[in-house]
Amino acid sequence: MDIEDFRKAGYDAVDRICDYYLSLRDRPVVAEVEPAYLRKTLPDHAPEQGEPWADIANDYSSLIVPGLTHWQHPSFFAYFPTAATFEGMLGDFLASSTANPGFNWLASPACTELESVVMDWAAKMFGLDPIFYNEGEIGGGVIQTTASDSALTAIVAARSRYMTLHPSTSMESLVIYVTSQTHSFGKKAGLVLGLKVRALPVDETARRGDGLDATTLRAAVEEDRAAGHMPFVLVATVGTTTSGLIDCVKELGALLKEDYPDIWLHVDAAWAGCALSCPEYRERAQLEGINLYADSLCINFHKWGLINFDCSALWVRERARLIDALDITPEYLRTKHGDAGTVIEFRNWHLSLGRRFRSLKIWFVLRSYGVSGFRAYIRRCIACCDVFASHIRETSGFELVAPPSFSLTLFRILPNGPADEHYINMLNRAFFDALLARHDLLLTQTELGGTFCVRFSVGSARTTVDDIEKAWTVVKDIAKDVRLRFSIAN
Amino acid sequence: MDIEDFRKAGYDAVDRICDYYLSLRDRPVVAEVEPAYLRKTLPDHAPEQGEPWADIANDYSSLIVPGLTHWQHPSFFAYFPTAATFEGMLGDFLASSTANPGFNWLASPACTELESVVMDWAAKMFGLDPIFYNEGEIGGGVIQTTASDSALTAIVAARSRYMTLHPSTSMESLVIYVTSQTHSFGKKAGLVLGLKVRALPVDETARRGDGLDATTLRAAVEEDRAAGHMPFVLVATVGTTTSGLIDCVKELGALLKEDYPDIWLHVDAAWAGCALSCPEYRERAQLEGINLYADSLCINFHKWGLINFDCSALWVRERARLIDALDITPEYLRTKHGDAGTVIEFRNWHLSLGRRFRSLKIWFVLRSYGVSGFRAYIRRCIACCDVFASHIRETSGFELVAPPSFSLTLFRILPNGPADEHYINMLNRAFFDALLARHDLLLTQTELGGTFCVRFSVGSARTTVDDIEKAWTVVKDIAKDVRLRFSIAN
Repeated sequence: MDIEDFRKAGYDAVDRICDYYLSLRDRPVVAEVEPAYLRKTLPDHAPEQGEPWADIANDYSSLIVPGLTHWQHPSFFAYFPTAATFEGMLGDFLASSTANPGFNWLASPACTELESVVMDWAAKMFGLDPIFYNEGEIGGGVIQTTASDSALTAIVAARSRYMTLHPSTSMESLVIYVTSQTHSFGKKAGLVLGLKVRALPVDETARRGDGLDATTLRAAVEEDRAAGHMPFVLVATVGTTTSGLIDCVKELGALLKEDYPDIWLHVDAAWAGCALSCPEYRERAQLEGINLYADSLCINFHKWGLINFDCSALWVRERARLIDALDITPEYLRTKHGDAGTVIEFRNWHLSLGRRFRSLKIWFVLRSYGVSGFRAYIRRCIACCDVFASHIRETSGFELVAPPSFSLTLFRILPNGPADEHYINMLNRAFFDALLARHDLLLTQTELGGTFCVRFSVGSARTTVDDIEKAWTVVKDIAKDVRLRFSIAN
Repeated sequence: MDIEDFRKAGYDAVDRICDYYLSLRDRPVVAEVEPAYLRKTLPDHAPEQGEPWADIANDYSSLIVPGLTHWQHPSFFAYFPTAATFEGMLGDFLASSTANPGFNWLASPACTELESVVMDWAAKMFGLDPIFYNEGEIGGGVIQTTASDSALTAIVAARSRYMTLHPSTSMESLVIYVTSQTHSFGKKAGLVLGLKVRALPVDETARRGDGLDATTLRAAVEEDRAAGHMPFVLVATVGTTTSGLIDCVKELGALLKEDYPDIWLHVDAAWAGCALSCPEYRERAQLEGINLYADSLCINFHKWGLINFDCSALWVRERARLIDALDITPEYLRTKHGDAGTVIEFRNWHLSLGRRFRSLKIWFVLRSYGVSGFRAYIRRCIACCDVFASHIRETSGFELVAPPSFSLTLFRILPNGPADEHYINMLNRAFFDALLARHDLLLTQTELGGTFCVRFSVGSARTTVDDIEKAWTVVKDIAKDVRLRFSIAN
């Protein structure tokens, strides 16, 4: 493909994306394909000779698009949002056009420079303490791939700090603290690092919307230390993926600072952190605790932050802790500016060496939306979710399983007559299966303290109150059918 | 930005990319900017109100592009190639347009399906044994972010296998084996996992172009085991980043299989692996050893494989080893197909949960180039590098520091009269500094067994023999100047 071929193919790709968004509302949310549908269709090896681009582009539209689950669909209420904006796409496109691994300042100065600047823009938009700004040169912000990656990086820095303070500690005695509602990356970090993970219980308090408390944390630390186990990091969450639960960061942070200062506090606000952009949600989103106590903080722009996957923002209170843990500089990566320390070398702030130019899409989105536009989007999502939660609250036969958390609502249906929890769980599994059989909307499930329930998460930039009302009608009708089926069967 | 605004902005972005490539040859390779150039120019916070797209796009061209180091420039001979093709850009663009984290089959079936298929296409193109195909359901291929990520994943699987075989081993006794020429990710994996790393020496043999041999490996294992240290993984390299060195995979693999079967063999062919696409390079690129013995193999499409960063291909002989090491499936990620085992759940094949839809760009590139076009590109790079190496070989005052390796040549200049190694190193540092001061081409440096030398690496899809000749003229002239300067100074 030469430059003029690319001009045509590029325009065509733009048109295909426009067509996609023009038709998105009319598509099924969930792909209507069966396992191995593509393997059965595609040749089993690459072609020997190149094929015309038009054929390839048409196959994209006819074979690939129907196999996608449309996370940007206005009726996608599953998992958590994955942002996609046109500005973000253009950022990805242009970054790809000058592909470079950006590991050094010299390897492509604009990549490091822009990341350093826009992470400060973001820190200010979220109300973070200046200690976290890159411009202060003490803490700083860096873009990681995912929240798993951010957490793993923070845990490695935490372990490095702990081992420096207590060099004779054996790896076998180290423990990562998460809660029973923490994202699965907590358990995975344990698998990757070969370390024990202890999930502190929050299931009891979860249905009140409360997360981990300091009493539970203190009891766990004392118990573990007495048994020779050494907790060195606590992953607290502002808005767990599964249930939107919020740990009290200020209370936990104060305890750690006072009594256990060698335990690192990582705050995972991957999903809900974007609400910090709105002053009215900062208290609920634990800003004070984060600013006072967090050693590190993760907010995924690619979840609820209008920036296309992937783009996970990680801030640290002391950049030196990351660099101490991760710095490697072989001869072939040495540069004049790096040696002089006049530039940030982001390769020492994360696990990989190479990195994409992701700050470009943050720059595009924050400039095009402005802080006011970013806030308006967050507020609209929460308002939409509130409409749905109100229906649940006001309709008999429905129950909120926990207080709504920002734009996430957990609910279940109740049977027509009295029943035990086991029966209600069975009823709700049937209800959820019936919901899943629909392809015009998508919700996912979870379990909270033994209670099976359905999650309703709002985040698509295109979801309106009309979409919420449409979803509510579907949910209500299915609930009625399932209740009826159950009362006949029993 | 609404859909029709995006159509205009998208066309405009395509035009900017065309302009970029039309003017690329006339740009300086290295950005002519100073540290903090962007921080001094940009506002220190995001705008409150959104800005017009035209302003943002123009700032991209006027502020960002001049701050890029142009890895796609025909006179970029530094580090290693970072592929960029128009087909790859379109893949990134379309993938970004339907942003989703693809962690489950259900989360977007086409993402998993296409990855499973194109990784088999690639395995076949590279001549890999069918054990590595996804279609066989024993081994398989998965796209990771970078070679660091691939190696870390392999090392975690290796540790898991070793600990299953020897459950009482302490973490402190585990050792990762790399060589003194292995990519820095070896050392970094040790930092991340908190494990010892031993770099087996190859500096002696490197100048002959030979890598690690079985005698050295055996001696190291015996010595370590006698001291209570437990090597559990060997990272062998086909084409080290620093010097293009090739370890004898067959010899090392045979020794491990025979005498130390609990030590995992990871082959890092991140850069040179793409040469496996050409039958005539398969022997040199260790195909037989890989097929017989490698537990895992990494080839970065985003280096020498025409596919835009990032796109690191990892194959494993036994997918069960990855899944045993990394599987986590909380309730909210369970699906019917996943529970039934009828689909691949790639989230259990790597460290993060979410993943981009990167198989799309592999599909685009392999179809548009065909296997023959992919091979033609590899052969052209090697032919270009051979032209440069011939000049070095045939010109007095120049020396190859090691035999050329595929498209990488290590060389140095020699002084006009006799001199010791220390003096020659000083001369070559001055030579390299003078090269670095030029902005019309870029080369990087390395050290091989105490010898400072300059690396010349070919990989841009736009480099022609004319560019090589132009570079050679610059190199020759600078060498002359520096030699003269040195003879006057001394």
